Amino acid sequence: MNELVFVGLGLNDEKGITIKGLEETKTADQVFMENYTSRMPNFSLKRFESFCGKKIQIVDRQTLEEENGKLILKAAKEGKTVFLVPGDPFIATTHVALRIDAEKQGIKTRLVHGISIISAIVSMSGLHNYKFGKTVTVPFPENFSKTPYNVVAQNKSIGLHTLCLLDLKAYKKEYLSINQALKMLLEIEARNKRNIITPENIAVGIARAGNNNPTLKADYISDLLNFDFGQPPYSLIIPGELHFMEVEALIAFADAPRTFKRLSK
Amino acid sequence: MNELVFVGLGLNDEKGITIKGLEETKTADQVFMENYTSRMPNFSLKRFESFCGKKIQIVDRQTLEEENGKLILKAAKEGKTVFLVPGDPFIATTHVALRIDAEKQGIKTRLVHGISIISAIVSMSGLHNYKFGKTVTVPFPENFSKTPYNVVAQNKSIGLHTLCLLDLKAYKKEYLSINQALKMLLEIEARNKRNIITPENIAVGIARAGNNNPTLKADYISDLLNFDFGQPPYSLIIPGELHFMEVEALIAFADAPRTFKRLSK
Repeated sequence: MNELVFVGLGLNDEKGITIKGLEETKTADQVFMENYTSRMPNFSLKRFESFCGKKIQIVDRQTLEEENGKLILKAAKEGKTVFLVPGDPFIATTHVALRIDAEKQGIKTRLVHGISIISAIVSMSGLHNYKFGKTVTVPFPENFSKTPYNVVAQNKSIGLHTLCLLDLKAYKKEYLSINQALKMLLEIEARNKRNIITPENIAVGIARAGNNNPTLKADYISDLLNFDFGQPPYSLIIPGELHFMEVEALIAFADAPRTFKRLSK
Repeated sequence: MNELVFVGLGLNDEKGITIKGLEETKTADQVFMENYTSRMPNFSLKRFESFCGKKIQIVDRQTLEEENGKLILKAAKEGKTVFLVPGDPFIATTHVALRIDAEKQGIKTRLVHGISIISAIVSMSGLHNYKFGKTVTVPFPENFSKTPYNVVAQNKSIGLHTLCLLDLKAYKKEYLSINQALKMLLEIEARNKRNIITPENIAVGIARAGNNNPTLKADYISDLLNFDFGQPPYSLIIPGELHFMEVEALIAFADAPRTFKRLSK
């Protein structure tokens, strides 16, 4: 059957895919995968190919963006085509255009979800999902932006937590560190003096979400600046108001100092 | 090894679990599962048991809440114990307390993520993740609440989309319908006249996220009230400001009328 199935690979390694996603891959005529929007640090293409018994064609940014995914659309006109994407296929918006193009060309498309960083981080932290506001990405210093600070400020003004995704250059294996992200936020604070993100405020740093040994550390920002999170990838939560159960969770799961008990409302 | 591993089952059926989650289950000494916080409409316990080769003990709300999960904590002191939870284990906060208790009692805990409705809905819709504000749950009419309306109003005031989860009674297989949720929101509008959610505004209804044949329909609320979404479960998005690519996505994936093109900014 001619169709294009977008399949999420989830997080961390080749075992992050769902049974359903693996079955779809096994029954495909052609399988493509991109590895430039995100990185799965422990993903082995070789192991994954032996899992699914298929040869996988890696597509780079140029093939997808400059050639508008022609290669993939052509395959989808010829038979069942699976396009593997780290995380969940459309949480990053990069591939939405490809799906729109496929539908416009009369190609049937389907979506098999993968674990996304945006739900994994919330779940790991033990913080309450309905208390998160808008999500933001903190860029590398060379792309300095006040947006992350402003989003945190907006969320905090209504008591909400902010999930900060930290930028990465997948092809170079370069990751913005939690230290760099915090420093950028503190620098903006120093100029604006709005008392939104100070060294005395708290934050939660997360390394290696989806891995068997993630690092989760909640602390005052002044102390987090010196904390060694180990290997990437990294994320950051700037909490708003904390419920006492959320404080309990941060103490139990994120090794928060017991003085956090003073923070809950 | 004595430990308690929380494993997410993901959405829809027994194939929503990850390879990693299945492997953890296969190597457990005891396996528990709860099916009252959410429902996986096509999940077959029998098929899942044959997948993982384990006998699964179903625990109900009473066992978990009134007895503080004693049964599970006892098992985790004796050997490797897996606790299966629909979706991602801690997106609903119900089981955070059990994990805190385990850690306090010195039991090692781990988390294997599952697909969560909160990322799946965003991904399906083609709307931009970083444009979603706070999430809210719309309750059944007998638990009438103005909160969902107020959350939509707050999100809209800063241009953001709102993901509305619709309440369900898992044990009774009762689901709040999209029609009921919209009517509740319109009723509050009629009393408040704040022009937040009117029949002329748009919304996106979603049925059966994670299923092979989900229904996604974007339309003016007046028309959505009469749309047949088929089988549950249901969710709803009330969009804020739309980027033109988001409008394109709603037309391609959610069968939005072409007049939506006027809405984008």
